[in-house]
Amino acid sequence: MPDLETISALAPRLRKKEISPVELTLGCLGRIEELNPTLNAFISVTADSAMAEARKAETEIVRGEWRGPLHGIPIALKDLIDTAGVRTTAASRLCENRVPEKDADVVRRLRQAGAVIVGKNNLHEFAYGGSSLVSFFGEIHNPRNAEHIAGGSSGGSAAAVAAGLCYAAIGTDTAGSIREPAALCGCVGLKPTYGRVSARGVIPLSWSLDHVGPIAASVGDAALVLQAIAGYDALDTCSANVPLSDSASACNESAKNLRVGIPRKFFYDDLDDEVQAAVEHAIATIRTVVAEVREVKLDPPTDRSVQLAESFAYHAENVARTPELYQPETLRRIRSGEKISATEYIERRRELDEERRRAGEIFAEVDLLVTPTTPIPAPKIADLKKDPAALRPAELILLRNTRPFNVWGLPAISVPCGTSNAGLPIGLQIAGPPWGEELVLRLAGAYARSTT
Amino acid sequence: MPDLETISALAPRLRKKEISPVELTLGCLGRIEELNPTLNAFISVTADSAMAEARKAETEIVRGEWRGPLHGIPIALKDLIDTAGVRTTAASRLCENRVPEKDADVVRRLRQAGAVIVGKNNLHEFAYGGSSLVSFFGEIHNPRNAEHIAGGSSGGSAAAVAAGLCYAAIGTDTAGSIREPAALCGCVGLKPTYGRVSARGVIPLSWSLDHVGPIAASVGDAALVLQAIAGYDALDTCSANVPLSDSASACNESAKNLRVGIPRKFFYDDLDDEVQAAVEHAIATIRTVVAEVREVKLDPPTDRSVQLAESFAYHAENVARTPELYQPETLRRIRSGEKISATEYIERRRELDEERRRAGEIFAEVDLLVTPTTPIPAPKIADLKKDPAALRPAELILLRNTRPFNVWGLPAISVPCGTSNAGLPIGLQIAGPPWGEELVLRLAGAYARSTT
Repeated sequence: MPDLETISALAPRLRKKEISPVELTLGCLGRIEELNPTLNAFISVTADSAMAEARKAETEIVRGEWRGPLHGIPIALKDLIDTAGVRTTAASRLCENRVPEKDADVVRRLRQAGAVIVGKNNLHEFAYGGSSLVSFFGEIHNPRNAEHIAGGSSGGSAAAVAAGLCYAAIGTDTAGSIREPAALCGCVGLKPTYGRVSARGVIPLSWSLDHVGPIAASVGDAALVLQAIAGYDALDTCSANVPLSDSASACNESAKNLRVGIPRKFFYDDLDDEVQAAVEHAIATIRTVVAEVREVKLDPPTDRSVQLAESFAYHAENVARTPELYQPETLRRIRSGEKISATEYIERRRELDEERRRAGEIFAEVDLLVTPTTPIPAPKIADLKKDPAALRPAELILLRNTRPFNVWGLPAISVPCGTSNAGLPIGLQIAGPPWGEELVLRLAGAYARSTT
Repeated sequence: MPDLETISALAPRLRKKEISPVELTLGCLGRIEELNPTLNAFISVTADSAMAEARKAETEIVRGEWRGPLHGIPIALKDLIDTAGVRTTAASRLCENRVPEKDADVVRRLRQAGAVIVGKNNLHEFAYGGSSLVSFFGEIHNPRNAEHIAGGSSGGSAAAVAAGLCYAAIGTDTAGSIREPAALCGCVGLKPTYGRVSARGVIPLSWSLDHVGPIAASVGDAALVLQAIAGYDALDTCSANVPLSDSASACNESAKNLRVGIPRKFFYDDLDDEVQAAVEHAIATIRTVVAEVREVKLDPPTDRSVQLAESFAYHAENVARTPELYQPETLRRIRSGEKISATEYIERRRELDEERRRAGEIFAEVDLLVTPTTPIPAPKIADLKKDPAALRPAELILLRNTRPFNVWGLPAISVPCGTSNAGLPIGLQIAGPPWGEELVLRLAGAYARSTT
């Protein structure tokens, strides 16, 4: 992983006026201009407003009105997160010219924290899938090797962060869409507990499973962004009123009293050899910084009707009216939820509620769980393209280990844990109990420190 | 309303051993024997176990181990609330011989409080409806006038309390099924905030709308029972972890700083003249005990798809397998939810979530709302029987004012506020903000004191 500048390192220097938000923003815009033609990580670059925001941040900081660690930091948003006056497309022709009137709650919070919004990241159309190549704005390329996918659906966000086009990005994760591209691109992706970050103003894939969270260059940066965007939103019925403890300092705390569980069955099945080796090495490292590492039994949930039914419900009207505005593959996937009856949905939704209720039980035994984020590194774009039949299995395997944590609603992070011989990043997933972001960040921080 | 003995009056005397649980229980069993053939308020009378529980309570109290105000008090349960080893029928042939292995959570809590369970109350089959006469165990009669309905679906519970066959009963309320029969029979019925009382072990009508709560002889008694049965149940995904403040003492506090809202439109439309007069009189009385009474605007929610879809989902398997075991009218109602798609359900359920989220907004203006519980007194059984076409309109009007508070999930009580010339009770509904049982009980208590 190349040395990315971190917010944690920049923030004190910004505060001391050693560097300027304008300078940082110009840097990002320059790199976007240079690299985005290759990566296609941005759908819209908001250069003018970003420069205005950077100048405003600079003025405030010079006046001594420092808002906190995100003040003056260039950040990008997955292009299904509403931005007032700036088109928000969900990478779909259907929304090609959709300009929201209001910022999403998460954007409001970022602005309050003084962040500079540099643009809107490319994604898979309407957030469908982990390896789908479908975007009305073209496919996204992995900055570590442009012949490979960046993952998805928040692929543009992960690619942008990994390439240094912004210092952090906000993604969404319904089955792994933050963690999987973070793993494939070699950066950090954090899916918070369900309800931790407001999803109001974010185009949904599945209300019961959608999570909003940060993609960042380091564990500490993910924590800083989480701190800024987390919090109860009384206007979002999915938002929960549970205070977040100081997650930024958690990253620097010792993990030595933590017990770590390794759910070998399922989560460690059929791993690519290099992933296997990297993850085993990571576990050996973790063993040196925690109290205990032991194997645990964890049965993954399997049903997908809830996601399919909720997604179809959101799209039903447009699918009936203007099906031609969807990419065929996206339309096919959306329609797979069309025939689900209320009875089936209610039964599956109640099972999901029950799965989620019981998801905390494993944490009587251990404090955290560790798995590979993805069983394989990023596939080659050409391989997926020449064989459309390869797309679906790739998708299933790429999201296999992340999806259960969406059903359970548990906080989970992906951190880099190595690189394949081909130079492709490998990710380690650390998951914790409900509202246990602090624990997740403690181990992630301790692990990251022990590898540098 | 005849002078019913109250738990509030009995409890201190039980504690002082001036009266005995055995004596109270024998009294109830005697009255059940005498009156149940007319009222049909009980499906099962658990005389033997009740006597054993009463003797145990007596022994404990004599030993000085008083458990609290329900200790040794005979209480009955709507017969869709599971009782270990005692059949729980939902008034349906389908469950005629259904014997649960475990107590419902609410029963566990009652036992812990030392209550004596005297039996299982008759209801409308599977809790369908407010005026339906459908029970596999025959229709229930109003103790004030046996030619009239007791209301429903918790009709047996309200009839039993109003006739003194038990000192309180536990009912369920999906559209008004606690408050409406309480109003029609002349006792007190309290539907708590959604999530306040566990519904685990209670046969559902509609998970999103079902509420479990007390029917009692006085406001104070309803508060005492609520105190015993309320509380977080980690095993019920609908249960909320919100502490209940001391509701029993709330009943005795002054209401003089409370602002009361009167939502004239809709809730006061098309009232029976005698109901109108009684409720206006009650409002005049309330005006003397509160800070302010003013009119407010309140739009009722209308959709019923959520209830229909959830009810069908629960019954789907049995409806397919053994439709003949349902009463035809119940089967017809259940089947009306059969064709609902996941899309429609999800849309309506999200609207319900949104309605519920916004339901608290009116309480910026006023502290409480007051309406008639039912726009008409109890209809005559013969009138409903001779004209089946009359059933549905009666049902709609009888639950019209109570149903909105199930959608909103707000706490609401029905207290007696008069009697028609024909001797039929009239009920006043007092509703409050989410988790505001204390406020509801304060006004209900103050109103009841000012009328005696």
